[in-house]
Amino acid sequence: MAAPIDFYFDFSSPYGYLASTRVDEIGQRYGREVTWRPFLLGAVFKIVGSAPLLDYPMKGDYSKHDMMRSARQLGVPFSLPSAFPTSSITACRLFYWLAESRPALVKPYASAIYRRYFADDKPIEPPEHAIEVAVSLGLDRSAVETALQESAVKAKLKAEVDAGIARGVFGSPFIFVDGEPFWGSDRLDQIERWLETGGW
Amino acid sequence: MAAPIDFYFDFSSPYGYLASTRVDEIGQRYGREVTWRPFLLGAVFKIVGSAPLLDYPMKGDYSKHDMMRSARQLGVPFSLPSAFPTSSITACRLFYWLAESRPALVKPYASAIYRRYFADDKPIEPPEHAIEVAVSLGLDRSAVETALQESAVKAKLKAEVDAGIARGVFGSPFIFVDGEPFWGSDRLDQIERWLETGGW
Repeated sequence: MAAPIDFYFDFSSPYGYLASTRVDEIGQRYGREVTWRPFLLGAVFKIVGSAPLLDYPMKGDYSKHDMMRSARQLGVPFSLPSAFPTSSITACRLFYWLAESRPALVKPYASAIYRRYFADDKPIEPPEHAIEVAVSLGLDRSAVETALQESAVKAKLKAEVDAGIARGVFGSPFIFVDGEPFWGSDRLDQIERWLETGGW
Repeated sequence: MAAPIDFYFDFSSPYGYLASTRVDEIGQRYGREVTWRPFLLGAVFKIVGSAPLLDYPMKGDYSKHDMMRSARQLGVPFSLPSAFPTSSITACRLFYWLAESRPALVKPYASAIYRRYFADDKPIEPPEHAIEVAVSLGLDRSAVETALQESAVKAKLKAEVDAGIARGVFGSPFIFVDGEPFWGSDRLDQIERWLETGGW
């Protein structure tokens, strides 16, 4: 079986959200698993010297327009959240706790977080919101709250962020196919062609 | 006849070069003229607070890789120029002088500048290089040299740059279809669909 596709994203990233609605379907078409890897874009901004998209004059306004247009093109419900951007550290920690304890739930959890934030315009921080999403999937509230205090869970997220940076991940979404890096939801068509042809 | 497509680009922009190889063909398919409008990205960087792509850690390395991969996908000869990025002020001024004096030559001139820089890895500044390209298209060397000293030619470029910024142009390529803005050579497929469907 061919190696899994690695899908890095930030829960606060509109283009990460758009990619999340298509990436598994693309993987399936080419017999590939897709490993979802949420990370913290803020950690990368410090290294790259960049900033949240909407902080840039001109580029910020265009980007808002582009996100909405791209979402409409894909038929994905989208609005710019009232609290944008947001921290996503709780959602990320719970994701990696689930990855070890209930792996079948990681994608439903991540998708529910993304929908809550970008389709329903509800916050995902402070922590009670990301916890609520986990509870709505049938998880035990006190187990979730306990997990969030575990140093092993915190360490796991930190290790994932560091590993992403070491691989060159500097934006969201960021996708690897057999080591080949692709940045942006606008590279999904190129990724499909890469999977189909084995590269060029 | 439907309104022309406006194609803004910087002669030092790899993605502008890639777009230049496809944009007229797309326009033709939908019965649209394409007006080419070279401008100076450096003037925009000051407003947006951004910098040349390769100056960013991580993002710079990825971008080099992405340019080459995108060029191969399109079948366009491309290498990162030895002197990159470059000023393109002479090429821009000659372009706008030609736009008034020999409009049929503006696209051949711009394409020759782009090929020289990105396909043949030859410089386009200092001025003698951009002048040489004009001469190779049959223009009189002394007329070209005189034009470059004209304050009206300088003013025309400045007016174009200011008008672009006023319309929200902050990157290259930047394309307007009936007022709808598209940034990046990776938006050409979206532009085609926009032309085909009238928007969504």
